[in-house]
Amino acid sequence: MAVILGIDPGSRIAGYGVILSDGFEISHIDHGVIRFSEKKSLPERLFDMRRALDQLIKQYQPTEIVVEGMFLGKNPQSAFVLGHVRGVCLERGVAHGLGIFEYAARTIKKSLTGNGNAAKDQVRSMVLHYLNVSTELPLDATDALAVALTHGRHVSRTTEARI
Amino acid sequence: MAVILGIDPGSRIAGYGVILSDGFEISHIDHGVIRFSEKKSLPERLFDMRRALDQLIKQYQPTEIVVEGMFLGKNPQSAFVLGHVRGVCLERGVAHGLGIFEYAARTIKKSLTGNGNAAKDQVRSMVLHYLNVSTELPLDATDALAVALTHGRHVSRTTEARI
Repeated sequence: MAVILGIDPGSRIAGYGVILSDGFEISHIDHGVIRFSEKKSLPERLFDMRRALDQLIKQYQPTEIVVEGMFLGKNPQSAFVLGHVRGVCLERGVAHGLGIFEYAARTIKKSLTGNGNAAKDQVRSMVLHYLNVSTELPLDATDALAVALTHGRHVSRTTEARI
Repeated sequence: MAVILGIDPGSRIAGYGVILSDGFEISHIDHGVIRFSEKKSLPERLFDMRRALDQLIKQYQPTEIVVEGMFLGKNPQSAFVLGHVRGVCLERGVAHGLGIFEYAARTIKKSLTGNGNAAKDQVRSMVLHYLNVSTELPLDATDALAVALTHGRHVSRTTEARI
């Protein structure tokens, strides 16, 4: 069994989702968002992110951490800033001895809906469906659960996603 | 007096330089490079970087950490990867209670040579001159000393470079 921590990195809000999976049976453990004060500098937000990650890892004892693969796309400046947040996530993964995986947005959409170009609403519906979560999910937590779920559904055969 | 740790972040080699400055008198303390094994993944390199930073900060007890400001320029993909390394550096700066500063490459060149478009050789000559270092400086350490020196020469009036 794997406890999977999915992270949706952000410099204003980051989402997290925790699920339990054996590759077939999957269950929801928790999800939430980490909000960074707008008054804080990027270094301070990175520090808050690191502390939040340490706390989540301590609380849920995940065996694997999964982040969305990032591509520069249309907004390289914002991807560059997110790279900083991702850096902290990946470093913490190694520091805590977790397996570290990433999936491209397209792979996540395809895995959950069958369509690599699916709209956010479709992805969200499938996250709610697979995890049997009926509460109002914040968007960033949905994305974090989506990446965790993508990994959880393939947990027995995902060495190619290891980074 | 400020002990300034300059970092030239890299995903294959990172440079560091440590200087002592009161804004007028500046002296060289140490410099070096951190090499990451090519066999290691990005997360593993980030982990090695974090440990190296913790070690340097423990050893030299800097009061300020300075990194080169990055702009996406011609190679956004490589800047994106460097963003990860910078993220770890900035987080460590906050974790250790250091002042954190950045200077654009152009500002560094202008500060040291009077010319914002100076060639690397000119910057290197001025680093050797100001710090009275005559040993063969590795390129990455030169860049790290250059950013530390830029800050050191303006240490009394650099709140605008604080990030």
